Amino acid sequence: MVMKDPGPIYLLTGNTGKLKEIGRWLQPLGVEVRLMERTFLEAQADSLEEVILTGMEVMEKEGDIEGPFIKDDSGLFIDALGGFPGVYSAYVQRTIGNKGILDLMGDRNDRGATFRTVIGLYQPGEGITLLRGECPGAISFEERGKQGFGYDPIFIPRGEERTFAEMSVDEKNSLSHRIRAIKGLIDYLSRCSG
Amino acid sequence: MVMKDPGPIYLLTGNTGKLKEIGRWLQPLGVEVRLMERTFLEAQADSLEEVILTGMEVMEKEGDIEGPFIKDDSGLFIDALGGFPGVYSAYVQRTIGNKGILDLMGDRNDRGATFRTVIGLYQPGEGITLLRGECPGAISFEERGKQGFGYDPIFIPRGEERTFAEMSVDEKNSLSHRIRAIKGLIDYLSRCSG
Repeated sequence: MVMKDPGPIYLLTGNTGKLKEIGRWLQPLGVEVRLMERTFLEAQADSLEEVILTGMEVMEKEGDIEGPFIKDDSGLFIDALGGFPGVYSAYVQRTIGNKGILDLMGDRNDRGATFRTVIGLYQPGEGITLLRGECPGAISFEERGKQGFGYDPIFIPRGEERTFAEMSVDEKNSLSHRIRAIKGLIDYLSRCSG
Repeated sequence: MVMKDPGPIYLLTGNTGKLKEIGRWLQPLGVEVRLMERTFLEAQADSLEEVILTGMEVMEKEGDIEGPFIKDDSGLFIDALGGFPGVYSAYVQRTIGNKGILDLMGDRNDRGATFRTVIGLYQPGEGITLLRGECPGAISFEERGKQGFGYDPIFIPRGEERTFAEMSVDEKNSLSHRIRAIKGLIDYLSRCSG
């Protein structure tokens, strides 16, 4: 399933680790991923989809988009906290951190939460396609594990007893919302290549 | 200090209460305040100033601005929580609420916090002026009082023992970050009227 003359896809990120990761995943499709160094306006919004769509619409109005590009955003949505920290997960991690989340959860039993990634693919003249990956799970009662980053030490994927931070990279990837969204992107690109 | 032929100033808000309030404050300057019904893109940012500037720059690129307009934004910045909830104060109030803030604060003694309002004044051809109002204070140990809204029941202004929610409207206004920012705007407009 190699795309016909797909041309490069740009990735809008400041994180070169993301560039390498997505590059590896799209290589089998014959798609080259290049870095797009441009400001992406992240809006205050209730959903990751809205953040991506709004930012892409702003770029579209500004013009000068060099080619098809992708932008992703992720967040942890906790049921008992009305979806908090949601689209503000990075900010909340920087300020109140995992200890803050555990303080907010206290000893409540309703600990359901979902990790979500949305990837937006902008294709000039064709519009925007959104791919979503989810990992349902629960918030632990204490921080456990040293792997990964961010909320990994307090998130237990459904069907597991360990947190993401207690798993190897490969184990985490097999469950990861982020990898699921990337696989959605691969499926989409493969279908479109005809 | 009446401005020379000041013309109307638009207020970008969905809240007609704000329109009436600012209209009353600017009336002595001979300035009429009109409602501007337009989307304002609120960006994810570390400061209220950045939120206002970014949103105004987006509007400027879009063009078709009918005249000078103002946009305000407010937030509660808690020292011990790294400035949380800051520019996301409305979202945090909707999700984890005052109970969430009290859970995060626990019984810590470092309870300093600042209520802040930033008003941006956009003048076509002249650029953007920012006016800031602050009210320093502290987070209470429990919710107290029924007046006001939002964080008022857990915020004690410096020099007071009561929360904003335990004060009359006039008492709160005499200390309010929001009114201080509006007064900054009045001073600015008066000076500019020559």
